[in-house]
Amino acid sequence: MSDMTIAAPVAFDVSEVNRLRRRHERGHYDKATVYAILDAALVCHIAYVIDGRPFCTPTAFWREGDHLYWHGSSASRAIRQQDGAMVCLTVSHLDALVMARSGFHHSVNYRSVMAWGHAHAVTDREEKLRLMDNFIDRVYPGRSTLIRQPTAQELKATTLMGMAMETASGKIRNTHVSDDEEDYAAVPAWSAVYPITQVLGEASECARQLPGLAVPEGMANFVPGTPLDELLAKSYRRTFGR
Amino acid sequence: MSDMTIAAPVAFDVSEVNRLRRRHERGHYDKATVYAILDAALVCHIAYVIDGRPFCTPTAFWREGDHLYWHGSSASRAIRQQDGAMVCLTVSHLDALVMARSGFHHSVNYRSVMAWGHAHAVTDREEKLRLMDNFIDRVYPGRSTLIRQPTAQELKATTLMGMAMETASGKIRNTHVSDDEEDYAAVPAWSAVYPITQVLGEASECARQLPGLAVPEGMANFVPGTPLDELLAKSYRRTFGR
Repeated sequence: MSDMTIAAPVAFDVSEVNRLRRRHERGHYDKATVYAILDAALVCHIAYVIDGRPFCTPTAFWREGDHLYWHGSSASRAIRQQDGAMVCLTVSHLDALVMARSGFHHSVNYRSVMAWGHAHAVTDREEKLRLMDNFIDRVYPGRSTLIRQPTAQELKATTLMGMAMETASGKIRNTHVSDDEEDYAAVPAWSAVYPITQVLGEASECARQLPGLAVPEGMANFVPGTPLDELLAKSYRRTFGR
Repeated sequence: MSDMTIAAPVAFDVSEVNRLRRRHERGHYDKATVYAILDAALVCHIAYVIDGRPFCTPTAFWREGDHLYWHGSSASRAIRQQDGAMVCLTVSHLDALVMARSGFHHSVNYRSVMAWGHAHAVTDREEKLRLMDNFIDRVYPGRSTLIRQPTAQELKATTLMGMAMETASGKIRNTHVSDDEEDYAAVPAWSAVYPITQVLGEASECARQLPGLAVPEGMANFVPGTPLDELLAKSYRRTFGR
């Protein structure tokens, strides 16, 4: 091959850590699938260990390339303990309730990602400012240019954490009622799938809005009733252009 | 006091584990608040440790008294590792996106609970059958009486995990746009709160429904457009009568 460009891997290596042991047909290791699940979410749950005790903290996050970022108070025990430590960052979307004719086959449809890496505090000032702007713009495209920039005190009080995804896996269930063959006729239990959607409501404006302020153009996709995962994916593409 | 009844504690003890260090005004240790957040949720995230590495797994769960329950495949590494181990079970509800005139004051409204305890597999057959019925009924009131009961093989293949909550804490943010005083007039950035609601969609019936089957009475609250947290809280009360 004459093209010397080394392409980025399109999938995560499968290892003892991220390999799905059960329901392996639901497993996804390709980055396109993993990224799509991550970029449609605002909140993740991060597992970490303090003195041998597991903690699971919900927090807002976003992705840039193979890096995941989140933030917290510099005074937070969780944030201080995470710096340099291995964490597991998990995202899940609940998509449906799935009934069945046996308890065993009741289920939910979902999309989830588990990602592991060593967390580190971003200490370079310019990098930190750039990332904090991206954190705002990732939800509200273009907003970082409209708001007051961080003060020195705010920057000091905020720890921005990042991690390179060392490994990750996605998991998707997206199927209808699925019963044992003999139960369809034998069990007279009405069964259905109920979709679940997280939706945006009507904006409640700040009571101290300056008079005459228009809704910024970057909020164009914030239409009441829009599924949050679709909205976040759109904001993401507007901000990062992919 | 002549009344010798020992009342159950109405709050979790506050310790180094569950005490909120930051934003302590958002902390709630009373059981009524913690239970209400738990009982309005179907999915939790469980943190546990395997060979020193944290894992964070999303799974369906429910509460009975001070016990939390979930289940998994008996062949699952996660489930086998959790038995006897300390876990952190976390529930979060995302209630709103909160804009601000500075990056620092952007936030989200939420309700969350972190609960710790030692997980254990429920091995008593009768207890396990009773709990698995409750797991179904907790979402779909009365449904356990309509479906086929578990086979010996299904019971063996399913591990039901429980934990007594040894400690827990709730955290709630439920406020509007909140900026530094000087920013309201100085920063012309349109700001608002957008409510976020997880809602139930229209039932998609199983294509192999037996003819003439009516929707069970227990599904009366499954009205499209109902917020999932309200629906789950209603199902919970119908099933457990409190």
